[in-house]
Amino acid sequence: MNVLIIYAHPYPASFNAAMKDRAVDVLGKAGHEVKVSDLYAMRFKATLDMDDFPDPCNRSFFSIANEMMAGFTRGKLAPDVLAEIAKVKWADLLIFQFPIWWSSMPAMLKGWIDRVFVQGFVVNLPNGQVYADGLLKGKKALISTTMGSAMELYTEDGPHGDLNLHLKSLWHNTFEFCGMEVVPSFYVFNAGEMEEFQVEAELDRWEEYLRMVI
Amino acid sequence: MNVLIIYAHPYPASFNAAMKDRAVDVLGKAGHEVKVSDLYAMRFKATLDMDDFPDPCNRSFFSIANEMMAGFTRGKLAPDVLAEIAKVKWADLLIFQFPIWWSSMPAMLKGWIDRVFVQGFVVNLPNGQVYADGLLKGKKALISTTMGSAMELYTEDGPHGDLNLHLKSLWHNTFEFCGMEVVPSFYVFNAGEMEEFQVEAELDRWEEYLRMVI
Repeated sequence: MNVLIIYAHPYPASFNAAMKDRAVDVLGKAGHEVKVSDLYAMRFKATLDMDDFPDPCNRSFFSIANEMMAGFTRGKLAPDVLAEIAKVKWADLLIFQFPIWWSSMPAMLKGWIDRVFVQGFVVNLPNGQVYADGLLKGKKALISTTMGSAMELYTEDGPHGDLNLHLKSLWHNTFEFCGMEVVPSFYVFNAGEMEEFQVEAELDRWEEYLRMVI
Repeated sequence: MNVLIIYAHPYPASFNAAMKDRAVDVLGKAGHEVKVSDLYAMRFKATLDMDDFPDPCNRSFFSIANEMMAGFTRGKLAPDVLAEIAKVKWADLLIFQFPIWWSSMPAMLKGWIDRVFVQGFVVNLPNGQVYADGLLKGKKALISTTMGSAMELYTEDGPHGDLNLHLKSLWHNTFEFCGMEVVPSFYVFNAGEMEEFQVEAELDRWEEYLRMVI
């Protein structure tokens, strides 16, 4: 299986980095092909901005959606976006490894979605190719994320509410919208305050989970 | 009242820009002081990265949360972050004007939250100063956003689910978490396909809403 890990943490010695490294190791040993998009190391441009549209096809009525679709069709997207699209095309499984910031993903990862999930590539709205007919049908997506908070804060009745619902815009309105099958998310709570033995235990739990779902 | 509009749309002639301009106009005429953080025009750095911590106070155990808190206490944050913090301090009301991308905010706006909502400024976790005791208590927040989709898609039983729930990580887990009072959000659906008379009608509806809630 071809696995693309989209990894977004600014600190190279972070626990998220260790999770990414463990996944690369485990998946490689199990005979899978693995590529990593280390967004911070790549200094990936996180903002979808007008620099992405140097030559709009419709200057009188500018539409981001239409320009992205036209750019994809004509192969005229930004080179870094085209490179990421090639990786997504190649992958059977996309693993998203990131820390929870403000009950959501870091801007860096949101920017990857904003720029790489181009209409015409992931969905085709005019043709109704969304959800079950989304263009990424056949691929799987897995969210693996960490947070400083305790699990109790993120229960349905807890002060922060159900974390699954906060991430629904990602796993349902993005991944499932594009036709991907979503593997249940893997969460590490209290990630900021772990002792070394807890770090190892959580990395082992992650490894076991990967072996189970892959 | 002091109003800060945090505005994030890449296209200067967008409908979001018109909404921002209308708010500036209406609020100014009503005697309020208005400042705008036009994040794209400012080329605001959307990624919280290691460049934000040139001189970590704890190199042996690097923690973003701890470094941000220490940086705030010592006044040693990045100059662009300090400038935004000064505006937030000044403001009684924060209006967030942005398009919905992937049932969420653009990376540019998430990056503003990631970098400007610094621990010690907006909350103090060690002291338990969150939610009702959050450090932005006394301020109000208002989300004003647009989307290409029709309202029917975003109902509780619609394919995309309730938009209020998708934005809960912003209005509850961020704004209310920091002690702010949240004004009900203002939504414009079908924003990509409006005729000129509809654009004007929506801008008038926005103006009326602002007059009502301010």
